[in-house]
Amino acid sequence: MYSERLEKAFESAGIGLGERFRLTSEGKVMEGMLMPRPDSGNPDIIIIKFDNGYNAGIKFTRETKLEKLEAAKAAAKQNSPSVHSRKFNHSLGKVELIYTGGTISSKIDYKTGGVYMLTKPEELLETVPEIAGIANLSLTNLMSIASEDMSYLEWQKIAKAAADSLNNGARGIIITHGTDTMHYTSAALSFMLKDLRGPVVMVGSQRSSDRGSSDAFVNLASAARMAAESDMAEVAVCMHATSSDNHCNIMRGTKVRKMHTSRRDAFRAINSKPIASVSYEGKIIYHADDYRKIPGTDEKTKLMAGFEPKAALIKVHPNSDPGILEYYQGKGYKGAIIEGTGLGHAPVSTPHSDLNWIRYIKSAVDSGMIIGMTSQCINGRVNDKVYRNLRMIKDAGAVFCEDMMPEVAYVKLGWLLGNYKKAEAEKLLPENLTGEISARSEADWFGD
Amino acid sequence: MYSERLEKAFESAGIGLGERFRLTSEGKVMEGMLMPRPDSGNPDIIIIKFDNGYNAGIKFTRETKLEKLEAAKAAAKQNSPSVHSRKFNHSLGKVELIYTGGTISSKIDYKTGGVYMLTKPEELLETVPEIAGIANLSLTNLMSIASEDMSYLEWQKIAKAAADSLNNGARGIIITHGTDTMHYTSAALSFMLKDLRGPVVMVGSQRSSDRGSSDAFVNLASAARMAAESDMAEVAVCMHATSSDNHCNIMRGTKVRKMHTSRRDAFRAINSKPIASVSYEGKIIYHADDYRKIPGTDEKTKLMAGFEPKAALIKVHPNSDPGILEYYQGKGYKGAIIEGTGLGHAPVSTPHSDLNWIRYIKSAVDSGMIIGMTSQCINGRVNDKVYRNLRMIKDAGAVFCEDMMPEVAYVKLGWLLGNYKKAEAEKLLPENLTGEISARSEADWFGD
Repeated sequence: MYSERLEKAFESAGIGLGERFRLTSEGKVMEGMLMPRPDSGNPDIIIIKFDNGYNAGIKFTRETKLEKLEAAKAAAKQNSPSVHSRKFNHSLGKVELIYTGGTISSKIDYKTGGVYMLTKPEELLETVPEIAGIANLSLTNLMSIASEDMSYLEWQKIAKAAADSLNNGARGIIITHGTDTMHYTSAALSFMLKDLRGPVVMVGSQRSSDRGSSDAFVNLASAARMAAESDMAEVAVCMHATSSDNHCNIMRGTKVRKMHTSRRDAFRAINSKPIASVSYEGKIIYHADDYRKIPGTDEKTKLMAGFEPKAALIKVHPNSDPGILEYYQGKGYKGAIIEGTGLGHAPVSTPHSDLNWIRYIKSAVDSGMIIGMTSQCINGRVNDKVYRNLRMIKDAGAVFCEDMMPEVAYVKLGWLLGNYKKAEAEKLLPENLTGEISARSEADWFGD
Repeated sequence: MYSERLEKAFESAGIGLGERFRLTSEGKVMEGMLMPRPDSGNPDIIIIKFDNGYNAGIKFTRETKLEKLEAAKAAAKQNSPSVHSRKFNHSLGKVELIYTGGTISSKIDYKTGGVYMLTKPEELLETVPEIAGIANLSLTNLMSIASEDMSYLEWQKIAKAAADSLNNGARGIIITHGTDTMHYTSAALSFMLKDLRGPVVMVGSQRSSDRGSSDAFVNLASAARMAAESDMAEVAVCMHATSSDNHCNIMRGTKVRKMHTSRRDAFRAINSKPIASVSYEGKIIYHADDYRKIPGTDEKTKLMAGFEPKAALIKVHPNSDPGILEYYQGKGYKGAIIEGTGLGHAPVSTPHSDLNWIRYIKSAVDSGMIIGMTSQCINGRVNDKVYRNLRMIKDAGAVFCEDMMPEVAYVKLGWLLGNYKKAEAEKLLPENLTGEISARSEADWFGD
């Protein structure tokens, strides 16, 4: 609720929530839509949504002039802004929004300065009324968990909810999720959901949705556009493409990584280019044609959600202790992905025997564990041939994981071990199943 | 050695090694310097070095025309090409090249396709004769070790050799090193070498120096330029700036990371911009003035090379086992850096108690270990305030490591524990000592 004097000012100007108005303050003129006031914070700050989807908070003073505007224009018009409008529109696609928590569904606690989670997902949608003009949205309040606290048990729940929705008539799925581990979850869903019937778009925000600088609005609107209209039948992540607010990237669920702690364009396509970009005005531009299309058949989306938690992700580095492999072996682990250096190296010819990994890798493999080799370089591909040390690791029985990021190889290993016998899991680890491995690398994937 | 018929052709045209010539073959005309033939490979392939420093191999046929050129021009002239010229030139800076191994000092074994190390460092310099026009170079053949096999014991040797050379009259140091862990070593040297008297430039190559596409020549020439002429008194890494051969970046030793398994421009400045760029023609362009300058005094470079190997680098991820902290505790480790997610998160509020890290972090801290928190996002800064989970980790006693990369925080922690008492080490971990922590982050550090 806004302050009493502000509510009065809106009333006398005839401006209702979700309506367009002009605000003149200190010589500056702004036009946009009146947004509901978050529960906490200064009730004298007017929240205005501009035509580019950006929200701002403007302090109301005695000098502030408010005027109602009749016609919506440009993007706002196209997106049919209407707060609380939830009527079914037959011209729009049926989309299920699965709510799991994270910053996108959080608010600032103005008393402590900290961020807390919303209890009602509807609050989030109130800040993005333009979605009503993009999709027929229904909500599943599945869980409210910070992404750093997510585990495979949550991945399984989310995968099941997505498969159920797709098999029950949704043409697309939006999953709101915390950003920290969104790329782990997107990889897990990419493997767990087979024969996808429609787009599954994961979306988060780096700033909570009650902050004027939040990326939640543009990210959600873009995700809704993809879920409602795209012919892509893949799991993808939708986040800001650059530090400006004008478009989002749609990045394959197994080829995306959070690469910055705080920026709104933190998510980057790795060893790939984005599948598509979505402008805030709603235009989808596809960057390649190698994405999976919605099948023409009536086949159901299948769930294959087994996951073996006894799989490890281990980073080697100078002075790293190879005994860690013995530790996991002793705990009954079925496999481990090693984050090697460069082309997939570990210290295997070092003269310092307590730092030499080769005996431990061999012992883990001999004990029945699957050992996968990846690179902490993140970009590029491992190779078991160039150097003698690489061939030693290969000969010890490690599986070189092509151009999979360590995180993706880890998720894939756990998923393979949870669904296949060991020999089959080991065979499938370096084979492309769902776009996670590229046959060859393109020069423009790493800038130029 | 070239083939007999090729040697004859050179002789009749009057072209000697290191001399400029014109080659006409299949209608194409090339001009450059005649390079010595690597021991292995096809002896009918002429190795020519173009004016941009790029080497190429051209097959000699009966149609190939060879002509001697009298005058060297442009870059080649400026760099005074002269194979085997090692005369002391009083107008050039005295530079020590410390040879440690790695791809830059390797050759392809054409029989197996693999790469093996050179036994004589002089072989490397024969491929970069232009260095004789840049610096008065002397060589220290310190070790021949692949960078994935490097440990703190090697770091200590390299640091001592660099300090000794600087204190004995060298104005700058070049350290040739494998690329895999070059950024770990550069971080270690940044802490181990105090009061630097001159530039310490680490350099490697992604392709071995006997391959036409090798980046060794341009990287080495640029490193020599920095070591001989720059007023920078820091440890830095010199590698290709882009995929083209025209300039290298000079990146602070604590702010650089190998970000691609195979590309020549694999090394990127992280949470910083490069200190400088060096063009192949020898022009140094400084990108900022915040680098440390050569001091005006006669103070010696000091060695502070203690290192505690019982420090760990641990990556958390969904489903990761917090028991790993107990494992290191049991082994008597003095500290660990956690590669958290996002702003420095670990699973600390997850409902699955076997996956919850908070008790283990607290127990490690209570047992006397230093626990540092960093982010696997690599770019950006951790923050202990925004979310409740972060404050829980802070309250458990973890030290948030600002904008240090996990690898740099790990090296710093091992170095601090090897040189200071625990309380002092813990206090210094989040404080800037040698440019490893930036007071504030600039927008253009992460692209735009």
